[in-house]
Amino acid sequence: MLPMEILISVAKINKYASPESGDTVEVIERPNGGMSVVLADGQSSGRGAKQISNLVVRKVISLLSEGVRDGAAARAASDSLFTERKGKVSSTLNILSVDMQTSTLVITRNNPAPVVIATDEQIRLLDEDCKPIGLYRDTRPLISELPLEAGLTIVMFTDGLVHAGTRYGEAMDFITCLQAIIEDENPHPQEIADSLLAHALQLDEGRPVDDISVVVLQVTSQEGDNVRRMTVRLPLA
Amino acid sequence: MLPMEILISVAKINKYASPESGDTVEVIERPNGGMSVVLADGQSSGRGAKQISNLVVRKVISLLSEGVRDGAAARAASDSLFTERKGKVSSTLNILSVDMQTSTLVITRNNPAPVVIATDEQIRLLDEDCKPIGLYRDTRPLISELPLEAGLTIVMFTDGLVHAGTRYGEAMDFITCLQAIIEDENPHPQEIADSLLAHALQLDEGRPVDDISVVVLQVTSQEGDNVRRMTVRLPLA
Repeated sequence: MLPMEILISVAKINKYASPESGDTVEVIERPNGGMSVVLADGQSSGRGAKQISNLVVRKVISLLSEGVRDGAAARAASDSLFTERKGKVSSTLNILSVDMQTSTLVITRNNPAPVVIATDEQIRLLDEDCKPIGLYRDTRPLISELPLEAGLTIVMFTDGLVHAGTRYGEAMDFITCLQAIIEDENPHPQEIADSLLAHALQLDEGRPVDDISVVVLQVTSQEGDNVRRMTVRLPLA
Repeated sequence: MLPMEILISVAKINKYASPESGDTVEVIERPNGGMSVVLADGQSSGRGAKQISNLVVRKVISLLSEGVRDGAAARAASDSLFTERKGKVSSTLNILSVDMQTSTLVITRNNPAPVVIATDEQIRLLDEDCKPIGLYRDTRPLISELPLEAGLTIVMFTDGLVHAGTRYGEAMDFITCLQAIIEDENPHPQEIADSLLAHALQLDEGRPVDDISVVVLQVTSQEGDNVRRMTVRLPLA
């Protein structure tokens, strides 16, 4: 395996005038090597939605950090939410993992919003029908596994991105938008996430109708040193 | 309160020729607003040390995400490690939290290595004697609380940074080093973390004698939008 590196970037904004986002995103180290990004969007918005998505993400990262496989962690989070809220509250859930045991990217979806896979040749969607968690017993995620190869870009998001602009009769065409961004020379995943979010904000006329979170993961050939790095920016409005 | 923003950056490298770092760092959202960075360095190095630091960080973030206070989470992690390993294994632990309930920065230390606090006027050290966790019953952390104000920079690290160069008869003077870095105009926390790590690597002649992790947190007045951002870089050697 040629030396590679993983870059993961997140851009996230609250629904307009909402002090809290109903979306939760966390990135954690996997106990057997690699990282996982866990993204949940709790039903409705504000404080209640935040509690739900926080509960779901907490459950999933706690299981992943014990070495539980992604699919089992997603099923456990669903059962747990179903039990706690008696099937009355739903949440979307995405897990995106770089699994060093299998040298694969594992994409777990319990989210009607698609996940985008871009390679040097093409852009394709994972958009088979799937259910959010919490409403039914035995809700299962859709799982896709890809070999870990330089040149892969994965984009996942909450439905705030999908539905941007609908209030004003416009729709987010994220494939065209993504194509335009990645035609530039080697955009950093933070630029990709920021550009998609900026486009959605523009469609919502600067006042996001829903919480929006965008996660972009890139696999590239390694350029530079062996230092792990992380940067987080948190505006305190 | 004037709009502020928090920037947190991490730079982390393994001991030379060691496939795994005994240090673990995770950043998580606090359930009542704000973020926490949890840093642990397990005794010895490699796989065993990784398991320890992973156990400690997992325990702490799980408690923090339930709303447990930082000091109580540190004590719980110590009792838990003491019980599990019968007092035979130690780990350092630092928690650095932006607590939006109290509008403070909370610095929790169970790590003999100091934490550096830099303001526009001065650089000072939190270096009162304290014990790593896991060796004794009732190990308590040292806790410092500072008002959340623009202009604050906090630097915390594992002992790989403190001891860099000792094999070659040189010592890391991180205060002088930090002073030189922050004299430049508004360095980004990632530049500060990278520069400190680069200096340590140089003292270790490019082959780090121990795992090294550096965390830098900055409070600044808000410049720019309300988007939360995160970027992670993971080299797969």
